[in-house]
Amino acid sequence: MSSFSHPPDYLIQGVLAGNRRVLARTITLFESRNPDHLRLAAQVLQGLAPHGGNALRLGITGVPGVGKSTLIEGLGLHLVERGHRVAVLAVDPSSRVSQGSIMGDKTRMEELSRRTDAFVRPSPSGGTLGGVAARTREAMVACEAAGFDVILVETVGVGQSETAVKGMVDFFLLLMLTGAGDELQGIKRGIMELADVVAITKADGENRELAERARKAYENALALFRFDREVPVLTTSALNGEGLAPLLDSLFRLYEADKATGALFNRRKAQQVDWFWELVEEGLLDRFRYAPKVASLMDETLAGVEKGEVFPGHAARKLLDRFTDEGG
Amino acid sequence: MSSFSHPPDYLIQGVLAGNRRVLARTITLFESRNPDHLRLAAQVLQGLAPHGGNALRLGITGVPGVGKSTLIEGLGLHLVERGHRVAVLAVDPSSRVSQGSIMGDKTRMEELSRRTDAFVRPSPSGGTLGGVAARTREAMVACEAAGFDVILVETVGVGQSETAVKGMVDFFLLLMLTGAGDELQGIKRGIMELADVVAITKADGENRELAERARKAYENALALFRFDREVPVLTTSALNGEGLAPLLDSLFRLYEADKATGALFNRRKAQQVDWFWELVEEGLLDRFRYAPKVASLMDETLAGVEKGEVFPGHAARKLLDRFTDEGG
Repeated sequence: MSSFSHPPDYLIQGVLAGNRRVLARTITLFESRNPDHLRLAAQVLQGLAPHGGNALRLGITGVPGVGKSTLIEGLGLHLVERGHRVAVLAVDPSSRVSQGSIMGDKTRMEELSRRTDAFVRPSPSGGTLGGVAARTREAMVACEAAGFDVILVETVGVGQSETAVKGMVDFFLLLMLTGAGDELQGIKRGIMELADVVAITKADGENRELAERARKAYENALALFRFDREVPVLTTSALNGEGLAPLLDSLFRLYEADKATGALFNRRKAQQVDWFWELVEEGLLDRFRYAPKVASLMDETLAGVEKGEVFPGHAARKLLDRFTDEGG
Repeated sequence: MSSFSHPPDYLIQGVLAGNRRVLARTITLFESRNPDHLRLAAQVLQGLAPHGGNALRLGITGVPGVGKSTLIEGLGLHLVERGHRVAVLAVDPSSRVSQGSIMGDKTRMEELSRRTDAFVRPSPSGGTLGGVAARTREAMVACEAAGFDVILVETVGVGQSETAVKGMVDFFLLLMLTGAGDELQGIKRGIMELADVVAITKADGENRELAERARKAYENALALFRFDREVPVLTTSALNGEGLAPLLDSLFRLYEADKATGALFNRRKAQQVDWFWELVEEGLLDRFRYAPKVASLMDETLAGVEKGEVFPGHAARKLLDRFTDEGG
């Protein structure tokens, strides 16, 4: 990757100037696991970080078939029309497997991709959820530094990735289909409770009435489940564009309100600290797991714990002592 | 605590014989943080562990005022009548603070406490949630070894402790009040999604109709939110005993079904392994946090991360390297 022989300043300045090609290269650098690139990436990131933070960060999720990318493209085009600059990123740890991953299909969001005020980036391929999420966070900082003021982070409706995305966005939009049948089975426990706004998709044609009924049902259900804030439920159609403007309005209302009270700023500060601790935890577990003196006992230990022969507390203490060389 | 000068076998045999006084002493031993007691506790626990596991383990939660202890006492008496032996334990990390903690009031569950087939134990006082939860798990093993075949684990409706209890019980019973007003504000995000059974309490007198309406509302809401299993919603009255028998029936139906399919066994195996990893994580974080070479940099690091001056990834890597003495 010869482009990375540029000094960090070339990338930093290019991103700050809003150059989409340099932005794309910079994100590719962030995604590289090549040890030579890590130091450069760190320098570039450190240079960009002070220029990040000026965007509405929105997580968007929903099961496959809910019409996620069509809706995101619709929202993106609307936003561009309103004078915003929109970046679309994705967190999809399954994208290394070939099963219909998000934005894997190159024909998706074609129209939005062509706009100069939009930037569409598929999920980094490969890696653990933690790795993919970390690289998406870094990409988000780069996009913000490049002047994009709305970041849409797309994710698959499988639970774990939503929790990861919740830690990097300001708000979460949950897309739902009409009908309470099999289509809904894919939504995992807990996702409903992450949502700040719910949108029923494909509310057009014959589906319109059903969508309105679903909207009311979710509104009632959410009133019973969610006491931390009122969760707007809207119907939308990417086909005819209905509902997209009210959806954006309600998102910007939340954004402006939380900016005014300072809640947004405080949440982001807490997200940074949480992220630090997540990385510490992940790093500690990695180093623990792969320490030879621990690894050599792991299979045996886990088997004993599973069978109930060894109490988890004793097993944990024993391995921890080996790891830190205390007692034993 | 002179009683702990007994050899471990005295405690083990006493518990296995179902002696409630020895059981109480054993649990007190488990709760002791005295280093001299830790080794004895480990021996006793290891001796009891193979005799645990033969109980229906039920977590019970609900906001203060929902009538938790009255309902638990009612359920307990019913169970004893049916020939069961019932132990009631509590996880309440707030009990060190004097604010109306669960089972703090000694007059509570008076009638149940007097039954020879029941054992009521308040929450261990003091300590972190993790510590309290660990000691409750250990107490649970002791109760099972003593022949109690239903363990009720009471917890406060504050979110974190429910997650901890979920990891040690087979099923979760959520108690709810009628009326969708202020009384409900205390239930935290996520708790509804942990429930396997929901019971509306105080469904008596004038409240009866309201309770039935609440029951239907929750049933509808849960059908939209929960796809992993059907969640029964029942109305109960501890005052006149109505609904208690059906509630127990539905819990035992779940228990028998999950035993028959092996789901119960597999879940418990997974809980043991999860618990091991939780303890490893907790232990790693503790040792990391208190390592002098880490602790000396922590305030400065967190301040930089909060202000956005240092990227969490770099801060984490730097401290991890110091902890494990790699690079630096």
